[in-house]
Amino acid sequence: MKSKSDRRRFLKGSAAVVGGMAVGGVKPVSSQSNDSSSDDTWSLGYEPQTPTDPREYGQRSRYVTAKRTYNPRGRRATDDVHSPLAEIEGIITPASLHFNVNHGSAIPDIDPATHRLMIHGMVDRPLIFTMEELKQFPSVTRTHFVECAYNAAPPERRSVNATVQRTHGQTSCSEWTGVLLSDLLKETGVKEGATWIVGEGAEEKKRTKSIPLAKAMADAIVAYGQNGEPVRPEQGFPLRLVVPGYEGPANVKWLRRIKLGDQPWMAHADNPGHTTLRPDGKGRWFEFEMGVNSVITSPSGGQHFPKHGFYGLTGLAWSGGGAINRVEVSTDGGNSWKDAQLLEPIHRFAHTRFYFPWQWNGEEVVLQSRATDERGDVQPALVELNKIFGVDTDYWLAIKDSRGHFNPIQPWKVTADGRVYNAIWEV
Amino acid sequence: MKSKSDRRRFLKGSAAVVGGMAVGGVKPVSSQSNDSSSDDTWSLGYEPQTPTDPREYGQRSRYVTAKRTYNPRGRRATDDVHSPLAEIEGIITPASLHFNVNHGSAIPDIDPATHRLMIHGMVDRPLIFTMEELKQFPSVTRTHFVECAYNAAPPERRSVNATVQRTHGQTSCSEWTGVLLSDLLKETGVKEGATWIVGEGAEEKKRTKSIPLAKAMADAIVAYGQNGEPVRPEQGFPLRLVVPGYEGPANVKWLRRIKLGDQPWMAHADNPGHTTLRPDGKGRWFEFEMGVNSVITSPSGGQHFPKHGFYGLTGLAWSGGGAINRVEVSTDGGNSWKDAQLLEPIHRFAHTRFYFPWQWNGEEVVLQSRATDERGDVQPALVELNKIFGVDTDYWLAIKDSRGHFNPIQPWKVTADGRVYNAIWEV
Repeated sequence: MKSKSDRRRFLKGSAAVVGGMAVGGVKPVSSQSNDSSSDDTWSLGYEPQTPTDPREYGQRSRYVTAKRTYNPRGRRATDDVHSPLAEIEGIITPASLHFNVNHGSAIPDIDPATHRLMIHGMVDRPLIFTMEELKQFPSVTRTHFVECAYNAAPPERRSVNATVQRTHGQTSCSEWTGVLLSDLLKETGVKEGATWIVGEGAEEKKRTKSIPLAKAMADAIVAYGQNGEPVRPEQGFPLRLVVPGYEGPANVKWLRRIKLGDQPWMAHADNPGHTTLRPDGKGRWFEFEMGVNSVITSPSGGQHFPKHGFYGLTGLAWSGGGAINRVEVSTDGGNSWKDAQLLEPIHRFAHTRFYFPWQWNGEEVVLQSRATDERGDVQPALVELNKIFGVDTDYWLAIKDSRGHFNPIQPWKVTADGRVYNAIWEV
Repeated sequence: MKSKSDRRRFLKGSAAVVGGMAVGGVKPVSSQSNDSSSDDTWSLGYEPQTPTDPREYGQRSRYVTAKRTYNPRGRRATDDVHSPLAEIEGIITPASLHFNVNHGSAIPDIDPATHRLMIHGMVDRPLIFTMEELKQFPSVTRTHFVECAYNAAPPERRSVNATVQRTHGQTSCSEWTGVLLSDLLKETGVKEGATWIVGEGAEEKKRTKSIPLAKAMADAIVAYGQNGEPVRPEQGFPLRLVVPGYEGPANVKWLRRIKLGDQPWMAHADNPGHTTLRPDGKGRWFEFEMGVNSVITSPSGGQHFPKHGFYGLTGLAWSGGGAINRVEVSTDGGNSWKDAQLLEPIHRFAHTRFYFPWQWNGEEVVLQSRATDERGDVQPALVELNKIFGVDTDYWLAIKDSRGHFNPIQPWKVTADGRVYNAIWEV
């Protein structure tokens, strides 16, 4: 076993450079530290803090009761936390209402003063950054969604009584602030032949994912800010790797290491057990981008519209392929579609709000939305997905495990008495 | 005294129209209700709510301790609440850390189910909107700052030990979501000759302000959302009139009425006691837009930089004139200026973050930032303001009351031991 001083042998006399100026104190590391073991103790156990003086840290109105839901029978109650999409205003998800999946790991309780980010592997000069050092770089501030690979998966959609919080509540959208990973890789240099990166978080169970270096260089953010404040513990405090449009596991929380290599690591989320089914029954490996998706949030499951008349139908659309270019709405069970209005701001890899003026005559109706992204990808109906996967709807009803990257159109049925139900299995 | 039924005589058979469709249930009001009295009881007293289950409503890390400061000797402790600008990431101010000035009124405790917005005066058809009705309109989501007219005023800048939270902490920036006031005025119609509006909130003391109708039509928002959730009680729950770039009092909290007329109302914030001094010693009436302003938040007062070397100097700039076009930084007491980098996103009437790579050689230095907005307005030095006002610096040091719209360049002195002090009176 190597000693700690071996693993943390600092190279003397070198320093990172920003804009031609030396960043004082950034620590280079020896190549001996490029193994995956860890003896650091900056992750212990999350102890939530409630600031109690509302003058110092303000609070919601007592009439505002939106809350996350979670599965108390999960491995941990923090594993399966859904965001109340129907109660979100605009496009940002308040950090307190962001969805959360931790895969059985406790939320690390990290002191940012001792936290470090190591970048190593196929780099010219491995470096260790403190939080203060990262904050000396020019920051980027961008609005991006993060979505669980299993969001909107069949088991979540089974019940006719499912709300949109249940069916689609594992996507959330934040204003992320941090450093472009490409800026940090300019400091370390990238060795010829490097094609992949992998991030490691400080949590107990590593469900990380290999990411193509080209994507990492394009727009990945080492984020320390979320909606104006430090990233929340559940979202990776003090550092999260935000990989716009890529499924949740790529967006490594509690980020402590990034390694560059010339092949994927066959990490947990690279394997076929984590990914979705192919028509031949095998798993699809290396799925990255979340599919183009949308859902009407009002009207949506569980809501009640006691009188007919005019309604401003609204919802959210997003895509791992970039910006949303179009959302169509059908109010007649899919026979005809009309363009919804896309409400600004429209960011790439962000929730985009749409609006559709709808006159309800009081008859039973099925409402659906269909998104198209900047690449021209169109959100499929379930029957189209069935053809691709070579299965029928009974298959989705029968499977017990989640199947990720499941983005069929979500139909809501509004009955004559104004109740709204999940109708995914009916169309 | 009129009976309530007189005041609330609803016109039968009329309804608001959105996109050519009738908005069911929007209540027109009779012209008898166009007086300023009120017998409604939807404002009582704010009772803050702390959601206690962090799974349902997440919390900050215990290592994150940014908090607002307030003056416990104020009329109310909620009157003079400053935002910790140096600890904000990106451009959005978390709602819990938004500045707050209430002018001695309690924060109303409003049930949104019973809240109404009346639009009346010189309109074709006065209307009363419920919250649900407002949400049937297409929403807009825009990032705007709100700033107290007295932000950064001389008394706040007096101490050499002042932090940026003390000197500039009464501006904050949010993603606001709501309905364009112009959309609501399409419903009511605007009578020929109408040139002004005034908003009224549900608070005890009305410190409202008359606003030119042209501005109201251009970009004012009747906002119900702030950073993804309902507007916070301190910021006007459930409705706030957001008038981009206009001083705080124009942005009426707890909004319940908007009246149109052909002249200003000579409301509290229209009077010269509220506004700033002219060279002839009289007050400037009808000041609206906050001046172009900026401040370096790191390094800033009270911070300590124990070692010299490279620093990523950063700060915020904003203007009531629209977008920030340029920020220059001087690191030599104002002898020379260099362009800072403006970091995206850059929104009109929003905080804009700037960045300047700075190599500190360990000598005492004075740091300053100077912003220019889209109209070409340049943030003045204090000596330039002195010329305009016909006073000298001693004047600002002597006055006890705040003087609003005070936007001179803020110099921070970094001493050789790395301590940072307010140097406004020295340059």
